[in-house]
Amino acid sequence: MAEESQKWVLMVTAQTPTNIAVIKYWGKRDETLILPVNDSISVTLDPEHLCTTTTVSVSPAFDQDRMWLNGKEISLSGGRFQSCLREIRSRATDVHDKEKGIKITKKDWEKLNVHIASYNNFPTAAGLASSAAGFACLVFALAKLMNANEDHSQLSAIARRGSGSACRSLYGGFVKWIMGKDEKGTDSLAVQLADEKHWDELVIVIAVVSSQQKETSSTTGMRDTVETSLLLQHRAKEVVPKRILKMEEAIKNRDFASFAQLACTDSNQFHAVCLDTCPPIFYMNDTSHRIISLVEKWNCAAGTPQVAYTFDAGPNAVLIARNRETAALLVQKLLFCFPPKSDADLNR
Amino acid sequence: MAEESQKWVLMVTAQTPTNIAVIKYWGKRDETLILPVNDSISVTLDPEHLCTTTTVSVSPAFDQDRMWLNGKEISLSGGRFQSCLREIRSRATDVHDKEKGIKITKKDWEKLNVHIASYNNFPTAAGLASSAAGFACLVFALAKLMNANEDHSQLSAIARRGSGSACRSLYGGFVKWIMGKDEKGTDSLAVQLADEKHWDELVIVIAVVSSQQKETSSTTGMRDTVETSLLLQHRAKEVVPKRILKMEEAIKNRDFASFAQLACTDSNQFHAVCLDTCPPIFYMNDTSHRIISLVEKWNCAAGTPQVAYTFDAGPNAVLIARNRETAALLVQKLLFCFPPKSDADLNR
Repeated sequence: MAEESQKWVLMVTAQTPTNIAVIKYWGKRDETLILPVNDSISVTLDPEHLCTTTTVSVSPAFDQDRMWLNGKEISLSGGRFQSCLREIRSRATDVHDKEKGIKITKKDWEKLNVHIASYNNFPTAAGLASSAAGFACLVFALAKLMNANEDHSQLSAIARRGSGSACRSLYGGFVKWIMGKDEKGTDSLAVQLADEKHWDELVIVIAVVSSQQKETSSTTGMRDTVETSLLLQHRAKEVVPKRILKMEEAIKNRDFASFAQLACTDSNQFHAVCLDTCPPIFYMNDTSHRIISLVEKWNCAAGTPQVAYTFDAGPNAVLIARNRETAALLVQKLLFCFPPKSDADLNR
Repeated sequence: MAEESQKWVLMVTAQTPTNIAVIKYWGKRDETLILPVNDSISVTLDPEHLCTTTTVSVSPAFDQDRMWLNGKEISLSGGRFQSCLREIRSRATDVHDKEKGIKITKKDWEKLNVHIASYNNFPTAAGLASSAAGFACLVFALAKLMNANEDHSQLSAIARRGSGSACRSLYGGFVKWIMGKDEKGTDSLAVQLADEKHWDELVIVIAVVSSQQKETSSTTGMRDTVETSLLLQHRAKEVVPKRILKMEEAIKNRDFASFAQLACTDSNQFHAVCLDTCPPIFYMNDTSHRIISLVEKWNCAAGTPQVAYTFDAGPNAVLIARNRETAALLVQKLLFCFPPKSDADLNR
């Protein structure tokens, strides 16, 4: 039945949203295990919007593991993909698809190869956490396919091996990545602080300043910062732990003023340590600066924060409005300050 | 002889170059006395180039102290001008101009008013230390006019009351502003580390990115940083003291590699604490970032630093080339990357 058996394909599709850190992760204490120098907190976006869709399939006809990202084949030879595949494979259990008449035993998984097709519905590697959504989705889909019965927290630790911030995309709502203490990283995983219903009046607007891929990858940038910045350790050890406590409190109490103040200052401090790196890393540009000024002036004029901003490893602004009305006003203001190009401009 | 005596005018003209900090001053521990949170080191420019020219004159015909900056009258009522005027007046001694037949006693100075005319031959308040050259020149000219027999270090402490960095413009070459410990600031003054001949192959090129006045004045910016940055104190207490020692050593040994590395990283760290301020302060813009990238890539390709960069409270780049040949190459590279506008562009 070898001929026959090679025809079957079993597949699973999953969709995972990206997440945006409001207390930033920047700097690893272990490069291979991807263990961070501080805790971080993020908000997971609505899966209807920025997300990765990944289909994983298995078939005896596949002679090697392969992956396609946005339709283009990419190499799976990197340590990060290999870590995730290895960790999930080692947790695979028996699968029995009665409808298709397929039986895969725990032992079979060691020999079977997978094909992975992943799509981002937003710019890749432009500082919008595409790798976070990507690895979280990959791990989740593989775990489902291979019937690996791990809870979300355990899966988050595996996704972390793919891309640190990916661990935070396994949950919705507000998520904390606990840095952990264990040398092997077993306690460096994500926990949910509050689910997506807890503070659902917040509206996130993403202003794409540039969809180009960033010049300095997060991995390289972080490594350079850890090696050269004289401010990073002070941030990681003295500043962030206090901010994490305050941010948890702000989220718990839906205290937008504190939330915004903490998110903005932490974003700025993350970019400050990038600038304190040798050679310096600039992720924000003049347009990012103008967006910050717009928000700062508005918040100052209103007497209390209306919008929080946060920037990841790129010039794109993630703006968090306190409610729908504020979000509508924000979009108005952005369109006024950054009018869309006329057709004439575009044809130049 | 009252009529007659009102006709005389006695005047003194002085010229003072600006200075560029290579280990930055940012943050005061005392706002009124202008006492800094850390030592700083600067290089004084050639007085033939960026400088302030100030003429101070005294006459019994003047009924109040007045000042003109670049031909426009400005108010002298600010505490900073008043401090400088008061300090120098209190040190005035007898003046006897035999040629003109003028005798002014120590007591007369209390009643006599001065007129001050000051010109900068470079953009004012654009982050090129115009106030440093300005106050140093004012204090120096007044001291000469009033025959205040103080040495340069004592004058530097008076100029400091006008603008902190002004104290460093009283000397040529490499200058250190010692922060001091005294609450009254008597020991917060400038000393010369090396004169202008010590390392005269260095060539300074200033790339004026914008001659517009800066949005955030240094005074306001510094105050905001002291009040809100969680990284500034770590910089001032832990990072700068070690850098000062290394920079003194680099200057002493004319060690350009260390000099450049220290100057660039300190400039970047100063801008990092600006970014860590709430609301954040951006002095550099995209063009500044491009200049930094150009220099970093060149230094990296050459294997050893050819040019150091440093940016003050504005987007303009101060570039220090290791020698004349490198400076010529630098200007070539700058003109290639930032070609001058054609006449057609200028007329648009």
